Amino acid sequence: MSKEQRTMIDAMLRQPRPEGPLPVEAIRAGFRAMMATMIVPDGIRTTATTLGPRPALLVEPVDGARAGTILYFHGGGFVFGSPETALSLTGNLVARTGFRAYSVDYRLAPEHPFPAAIEDTLSAYRALLDSGEDPSAIVFAGDSAGGGLTVTTCLAARDANLPLPAAIVAFSAGLDATRTGESMDTKAGVDPFFTRESLGHTGAVYLAGQDPHQPMLSPAVLADLTGFPPMLLQVGTNEVLLDDSTRLAARARAAGVDVVLDITADVPHVFQSFAGVLDEADEALDRAALFLAQHTESRRFV
Amino acid sequence: MSKEQRTMIDAMLRQPRPEGPLPVEAIRAGFRAMMATMIVPDGIRTTATTLGPRPALLVEPVDGARAGTILYFHGGGFVFGSPETALSLTGNLVARTGFRAYSVDYRLAPEHPFPAAIEDTLSAYRALLDSGEDPSAIVFAGDSAGGGLTVTTCLAARDANLPLPAAIVAFSAGLDATRTGESMDTKAGVDPFFTRESLGHTGAVYLAGQDPHQPMLSPAVLADLTGFPPMLLQVGTNEVLLDDSTRLAARARAAGVDVVLDITADVPHVFQSFAGVLDEADEALDRAALFLAQHTESRRFV
Repeated sequence: MSKEQRTMIDAMLRQPRPEGPLPVEAIRAGFRAMMATMIVPDGIRTTATTLGPRPALLVEPVDGARAGTILYFHGGGFVFGSPETALSLTGNLVARTGFRAYSVDYRLAPEHPFPAAIEDTLSAYRALLDSGEDPSAIVFAGDSAGGGLTVTTCLAARDANLPLPAAIVAFSAGLDATRTGESMDTKAGVDPFFTRESLGHTGAVYLAGQDPHQPMLSPAVLADLTGFPPMLLQVGTNEVLLDDSTRLAARARAAGVDVVLDITADVPHVFQSFAGVLDEADEALDRAALFLAQHTESRRFV
Repeated sequence: MSKEQRTMIDAMLRQPRPEGPLPVEAIRAGFRAMMATMIVPDGIRTTATTLGPRPALLVEPVDGARAGTILYFHGGGFVFGSPETALSLTGNLVARTGFRAYSVDYRLAPEHPFPAAIEDTLSAYRALLDSGEDPSAIVFAGDSAGGGLTVTTCLAARDANLPLPAAIVAFSAGLDATRTGESMDTKAGVDPFFTRESLGHTGAVYLAGQDPHQPMLSPAVLADLTGFPPMLLQVGTNEVLLDDSTRLAARARAAGVDVVLDITADVPHVFQSFAGVLDEADEALDRAALFLAQHTESRRFV
């Protein structure tokens, strides 16, 4: 049953798409349209708000939140996406944990290249701490480029001598702007979304000429993860970005960090978006929710 | 809090122990005594039974089992241990899943070296299938040498053209009789239980002169895992056996198998035995229980 689901989703994603790079606005509109087809779970409500200097979408359980706050970072290659395009993912984490989430509307390239996104997510985290939220009740979660932000925002928080969040969950995180993972080549053609070329296009927009060889751009190959909170890295095998996660997991392990590397075979980039359609998506989100619960409220009552 | 727990357990395990190899009966008695101190959860009952040609311990929830059967393989280097010494682990999985478990009393070396243990666990699995149990409701779980048996019994089942179980959970599995993992050296001294020498002693007893370079003895370096069910590999960083799991996970990933590599920092071999004392042990068991539930009954109702 699920094998059929995986095959169906792969075929669906391989529909013909336009050749060559599109204008930024076309990419943004296309991504909005695609993500609008994802199922947002019942039982949540959203409120437009701000967190620090930037807009954010507050996502809460209708029945009242349990203690715990997810700071969510959407995907989109630092060029497209928004809290709305990630609402299926954020909403599913909220519905499954009972936590509230703030999904940060960080600034995007080309208008605002690196490190604007990280400045904004760090500001959002600082604002949450300043509001009196206990860091042991805050977790970072994100997908794709936003999965990368879970790690780089934590690096930035450590550099700023802020307390670190209680846990990190990253779905198909982009963690290497040097693009040196073996899966960049071994998964070429297997990945229905990305090629080295397509990633290179948005990547160059975000870099804007800056050197990718720095921990804030390529944490999977350069970051010191000492002192990091427990991390859950979920990724599919049909991804050129697979080895971004496998290499970060190895670095985390070497740095003495609790790390779960959670691989689902034959599924594409951020397969959790297919919750409600693909069993593996729902199951992965359930595992993520348990992980978040284990490292926040349960731990605080020990 | 938990950091203190981890440190306390490490110190406890570093108590002086006798120099050099002990007689087999002394090793068996010492292990029985140590494992008898582990907490067995409430709400389970045990019944001595047989499964195929060997004795087995049936472990069930007192309140009646849900659909799902764990075939459990205890640890002990193929030389010591029994269903009773693993009862804390088996009982915790039963209590958390609601499944019943058969813990197999497979034959031990030196009386019965390789491949006696695998013959017995395969016979037990075959007996379970012959009793009419649906393989989609059967999972393999085990610790240490028994974690290795979860993999090698699955290999043996595939070789025998039997249907495979629905999932595998392995705690600190021993998966490489060639002992070529980097952690064999990098974790020397960090591991409070094992050294290359101590593993070599029991390993030689099990091998009885046979070549370790075969998939049934060293699956982490030699096994083809194609077609395997989803696997959860849990391991601590204070283990010379750490890379047995990391390498098996990489092989599973390459073979297109769903695999969760679940690393807990600064905990020893089969830290799940410390459930009730160490938070990480209970949390790891909860993750294992969710994984087992996801791949058995929930999947069957899709």
